[in-house]
Amino acid sequence: MKKLINSCECVLEEMIEGTLKASDGALRRLSSTNVLVRADAPVKGKVALVSGGGSGHEPAHAGYVGAGMLDAAVCGEVFTSPTPDQVYQAIKAVDSGSGTLLIVKNYTGDVMNFEMAKGLAAAEGIDVEMVVVNDDVAVEDSSFTAGRRGICGTVLVHKCAGAKADMGGSLAEVKAVAEKVIAGVRSMGMATEPSVVPANGKPNFTLADDEIEIGIGIHGEPGTHREKIKSADATVDELLGIILADMDLRADDEVAPILNGMGGTPLMELDILYNHLHDALEAKGFKVVHPLVGNYMTSIEMKGFSITLLKLDEELKELLGYKSYAPAMRV
Amino acid sequence: MKKLINSCECVLEEMIEGTLKASDGALRRLSSTNVLVRADAPVKGKVALVSGGGSGHEPAHAGYVGAGMLDAAVCGEVFTSPTPDQVYQAIKAVDSGSGTLLIVKNYTGDVMNFEMAKGLAAAEGIDVEMVVVNDDVAVEDSSFTAGRRGICGTVLVHKCAGAKADMGGSLAEVKAVAEKVIAGVRSMGMATEPSVVPANGKPNFTLADDEIEIGIGIHGEPGTHREKIKSADATVDELLGIILADMDLRADDEVAPILNGMGGTPLMELDILYNHLHDALEAKGFKVVHPLVGNYMTSIEMKGFSITLLKLDEELKELLGYKSYAPAMRV
Repeated sequence: MKKLINSCECVLEEMIEGTLKASDGALRRLSSTNVLVRADAPVKGKVALVSGGGSGHEPAHAGYVGAGMLDAAVCGEVFTSPTPDQVYQAIKAVDSGSGTLLIVKNYTGDVMNFEMAKGLAAAEGIDVEMVVVNDDVAVEDSSFTAGRRGICGTVLVHKCAGAKADMGGSLAEVKAVAEKVIAGVRSMGMATEPSVVPANGKPNFTLADDEIEIGIGIHGEPGTHREKIKSADATVDELLGIILADMDLRADDEVAPILNGMGGTPLMELDILYNHLHDALEAKGFKVVHPLVGNYMTSIEMKGFSITLLKLDEELKELLGYKSYAPAMRV
Repeated sequence: MKKLINSCECVLEEMIEGTLKASDGALRRLSSTNVLVRADAPVKGKVALVSGGGSGHEPAHAGYVGAGMLDAAVCGEVFTSPTPDQVYQAIKAVDSGSGTLLIVKNYTGDVMNFEMAKGLAAAEGIDVEMVVVNDDVAVEDSSFTAGRRGICGTVLVHKCAGAKADMGGSLAEVKAVAEKVIAGVRSMGMATEPSVVPANGKPNFTLADDEIEIGIGIHGEPGTHREKIKSADATVDELLGIILADMDLRADDEVAPILNGMGGTPLMELDILYNHLHDALEAKGFKVVHPLVGNYMTSIEMKGFSITLLKLDEELKELLGYKSYAPAMRV
């Protein structure tokens, strides 16, 4: 598969530098690290939010650094957890004395390394809390996790907790918001074409010309099963049915959906998929609020999509509508 | 090639409906048309801006409808000009009596149909002007054009002219801004993989596993030549050299770049490509202002990228920095 890169060894470094330069001064890179922080960090009096993980999920997480969302993103190698030291450097750079919340997707390496960084920071007297996002209903355990995987729902944790922090919430309050989102958010994805990790040079799975994989992970982890390709509407219905079976939603409830592209899916298809998702949600009596359609949590150039649904209450609705200045979420 | 659609016949209709629903009330669809307008159109006292063309270039043009950019987007079938009547309906819906500017990419069908719509509207006493964007330096004439093609530079025409209109500029002033951008903007693209028009079902060109095409059009029109794939940096250098040879830039000039993805290119690669573009521009002594990196003018799921450069003066710099509320350009 053809890639527009210079060398496998330089992918992370050049991607971070490109993101930094494209930010037009909004981001700053901590020297000798793969950490991007708000240029104005630490923000006095504000709880800081740090996320990150393996790269390859762009715009996650560096695209979500900005006022109203994250204070720092820690960028690991492609599909590889960042080291504890990198996370620790991020915490030290953004903590203003008001405490820091770590938002971690549920992968064994990420959880372990963020946990270690939390310990290092706590030993220096920094008030650090951590939440783990596990929104993927596809599989209960996976090749990289104990428990459910964390995928695109993480973006809504960034958004709501980031808003709460920007509004002056305490560390406990910001953590409570993050936990409320995690409790109420569910996601599931599928793929029509795989991605290729640059250093591997080969697709991380293969599908026949008429095959799709349901329940795929964002690192190309296996899903629940393969099927013949079917209509966009039927594919949305399948994922939606599995997600809703895991949620406690009633008619008139408000939900925030994300129709997320996996990186290589054209917006034409995402719009067509969203058209049916929206109708299907309304047909069930739910009220759709703050929909997002686009590439929010990707798997390099994978083709496919995921659906995320967040059950809203008045607090989460207000926080979702709160203005963000992060480049990938200017809503 | 696998597509997440329901049927070829429904692509345009479902894409428009999906875009409308995802807009969360910001857009309105004119009944019995494929025209999306600002929900609050016509905006009293403001010059209206109408663009459009064949679909398949999402987020162009519906993603650029919103305060500070376009008032209406006319969506043709995939890679097919919208009819004069559809453009005429758009003009009638958004014109507030202050006049309307049509922004058209230079393709023979688009120019002809927008020109006819202009005539129909003028016959009813509506003050309509039209500009044609021809920023693609790759070829002087092409399979679909007399003269250069209009590609991603069109987005900067929307942005600057839209800002001028929002600031209260007259039709003559808004048109003058659009013409200044057109005079100062140049673009060129390349592809590593083709796109597939749904109704055709086959790629609109084929490339070997180690081949790229330089100077490609956004409908898969042939470029200037094929080459063996090379490094991201060398590819940027080739396009940039051809673009700069056609511009009158001197050291210390300010330029606004777009590193545009063609639809299927992962953000990882766009960031890597932008990293070098930024460095190359600075090495030549130019000052980079308001950079954009992402999918702005696509060719369905084509893989590849284009570079756009706009020479700035104080007026254009201010207009580019003016706030837009269009979903695909919240800068």
